[in-house]
Amino acid sequence: MPEFLKLLPPDEALQLYLDALGAAHRPDSERIPSEAGLDRVLAADITAPHPLPPFTRSTVDGYAVRAADTYGASASLPAYLKLIGEVQMGQATDLVIGQHQTALVHTGGMIPAGANAVVMLEDTEIARANEVEIHKPAAVQDNVLLEGEDVQAGDAIFSAGTSLRPQEIGGLMGLGITEIDVIRRPRVGILSTGDEVVPPGEQAGPGQVRDINTYTLSALVTRAGGEAQSYGIIPDDSGQLRKAAQQAHAECDLVIITAGSSVSARDITADIIAELGSPGVLVHGVAIRPGKPTILALADHVPVIGLPGNPVSALVIAGLFVMPVMRYIHGMPPHALHPYLDAEVNVNIASITGREDYLPVRLHRDGKRLLAEPIYGRSNLIFTLVRADGLVRIPAEATGIAAGSPVRVHLLT
Amino acid sequence: MPEFLKLLPPDEALQLYLDALGAAHRPDSERIPSEAGLDRVLAADITAPHPLPPFTRSTVDGYAVRAADTYGASASLPAYLKLIGEVQMGQATDLVIGQHQTALVHTGGMIPAGANAVVMLEDTEIARANEVEIHKPAAVQDNVLLEGEDVQAGDAIFSAGTSLRPQEIGGLMGLGITEIDVIRRPRVGILSTGDEVVPPGEQAGPGQVRDINTYTLSALVTRAGGEAQSYGIIPDDSGQLRKAAQQAHAECDLVIITAGSSVSARDITADIIAELGSPGVLVHGVAIRPGKPTILALADHVPVIGLPGNPVSALVIAGLFVMPVMRYIHGMPPHALHPYLDAEVNVNIASITGREDYLPVRLHRDGKRLLAEPIYGRSNLIFTLVRADGLVRIPAEATGIAAGSPVRVHLLT
Repeated sequence: MPEFLKLLPPDEALQLYLDALGAAHRPDSERIPSEAGLDRVLAADITAPHPLPPFTRSTVDGYAVRAADTYGASASLPAYLKLIGEVQMGQATDLVIGQHQTALVHTGGMIPAGANAVVMLEDTEIARANEVEIHKPAAVQDNVLLEGEDVQAGDAIFSAGTSLRPQEIGGLMGLGITEIDVIRRPRVGILSTGDEVVPPGEQAGPGQVRDINTYTLSALVTRAGGEAQSYGIIPDDSGQLRKAAQQAHAECDLVIITAGSSVSARDITADIIAELGSPGVLVHGVAIRPGKPTILALADHVPVIGLPGNPVSALVIAGLFVMPVMRYIHGMPPHALHPYLDAEVNVNIASITGREDYLPVRLHRDGKRLLAEPIYGRSNLIFTLVRADGLVRIPAEATGIAAGSPVRVHLLT
Repeated sequence: MPEFLKLLPPDEALQLYLDALGAAHRPDSERIPSEAGLDRVLAADITAPHPLPPFTRSTVDGYAVRAADTYGASASLPAYLKLIGEVQMGQATDLVIGQHQTALVHTGGMIPAGANAVVMLEDTEIARANEVEIHKPAAVQDNVLLEGEDVQAGDAIFSAGTSLRPQEIGGLMGLGITEIDVIRRPRVGILSTGDEVVPPGEQAGPGQVRDINTYTLSALVTRAGGEAQSYGIIPDDSGQLRKAAQQAHAECDLVIITAGSSVSARDITADIIAELGSPGVLVHGVAIRPGKPTILALADHVPVIGLPGNPVSALVIAGLFVMPVMRYIHGMPPHALHPYLDAEVNVNIASITGREDYLPVRLHRDGKRLLAEPIYGRSNLIFTLVRADGLVRIPAEATGIAAGSPVRVHLLT
């Protein structure tokens, strides 16, 4: 029966695990339309097929000029330029701006040959037919975007492992890249164990509870870009759990098993995970509350994570460990930027040194101040997190937080 | 031809608009399985059909006791209790704990009648057959979760307008609520205008650019829980734009029109929006960069938003105005909590007073410091945002930010 080998601090546990995952298999790629690419992760680098902007264009409505022709111009002493035409939007132009000549151009319109700047409409006046008064000098490149100023042809614009935000999809479209290779959604097997657990659609008899973990973890996996696959509720029985775990291990890119809540049920889970493949269990026990009995394993190239059965612990730990592993599987940098809100705790909070605490809090506005109110409740049941806006991390070295102290709140989204 | 009526500060513009949206239609609701509810928004309040936990249960592996029987117990002077049985996981028990009696109970197991506390296994010892030594006193309710301690039957657990996170889905499942009524995904019509704009799949000829806004805005709408519906690329022609805008207005819960880039094209867009219905244009022009020509309108109960044609401006403004409107349409509180990262700007940044600036920045770690590097480039093309990790808001009253000053960076996700 495996014992808690030692309680690692959470960041060390995660780093040790991520280092070991170099040996993990990764999902292959698939080709999709770029417009369906939101939050998908690129499987390969992409270079720009042509420059952006693809032609030198105006950023204002105005007159395309040779800058030198406008030097010294003012309202009282304008430069007079001959109007030789208008650049139509969406069309190339064969106008050529010679000395003391100009052409009308609209925002986004192509700059005719010969011109190297644009004078804004409001700094001009039509003097007489085909003559424009320039009231302000233009410097070379004023109000002009050069071809390739944003992106040059051949630029490395996206690297493999980039998760696509709206702007990346826009960048792809601007370059005419309408199909992309992305990492196939990682398949994540979820096993919920416990003799007392019944499906949510069933009446929970006395002594029974409905399955929560399958659904909270599936939702989290969906958030992380994965495809959650439930392997059902497994009783606290070695044979049945081994069979289900082996099947999930064969079919998935990541396996998550939530342990039954009793000590013996947890032992069964740990044993089965250890048997699944080598190198096996890498971390068993993390100095964190909630979530001490967390198991991080790698079984024949497939990461396997054992979570506590308590739904609050399972979800908090999944946020800390499953999310970075999902990023890793996708080829993304595993450590994301985690924005926060600065708040003030409204009561004294006790904590035990040597263990990181993650405390659910609710946020209240009090004038300009943002107050973080701890959500207590001995229950540690799922509504603790339902009531919470975010989590406050209390470092291992702290013995608590005094009322009025500043804290960083990470939203539970 | 409508002029900029006045340039409102962005927060005033948004508040004025949200106040007016009380008259907007809202999408109806639809019934879905709770397990498909991630990020959907509840259409009705929900109360708890039964308590959670549904029965009084143990939070540890140990012995269920009458607390009074353990008073004064210690390792040197244990209390001796008669073991009358074991509570099986997932089953009701008909054991009744009498005076000086106890029963073995597992974590999550039901507390037998008569008992009011549990002594942890590690604080006990089996003395002889059917006798347990208690080495530590238990207070009433120690290691016990009372029926209904998390949620009481009839509690108002969720209100309409709640967006479902993994934990809310867990809470629903724990209570056996496997189907829910949610707001139908708002249909958002997107019209991209401009003579120079061609679809991304086509070769952009000289003077032409590919459509970016349809795709960046669709992605943003997807993020906000909406169903984006493209009405195509409309040339700068009143007749065609009017027809497309009227169709979108008839079919959608929100219409977004990106203006052509020239002044005349922008005027056409503003005119068409004004004609769509009453009360019409509520805000035309916001004191913000990028995005000054923003239009906020309500046309016969349908919100209509006119965005600048520049892809960076369109996406930044959509983040500031379209996102809160989407929350409003869903019945959510319109102002979300916006977490941030504290950083330090690495250069001096100039800004003009009287106008809020949103500056794209890239983040770099420098030891413990997080540095925000502004992304300049006169282009204001889409790769400005591709290169950015986040935005820094420079308030209207500021004339700039000195190098080394602290700033809050809002991630572009």
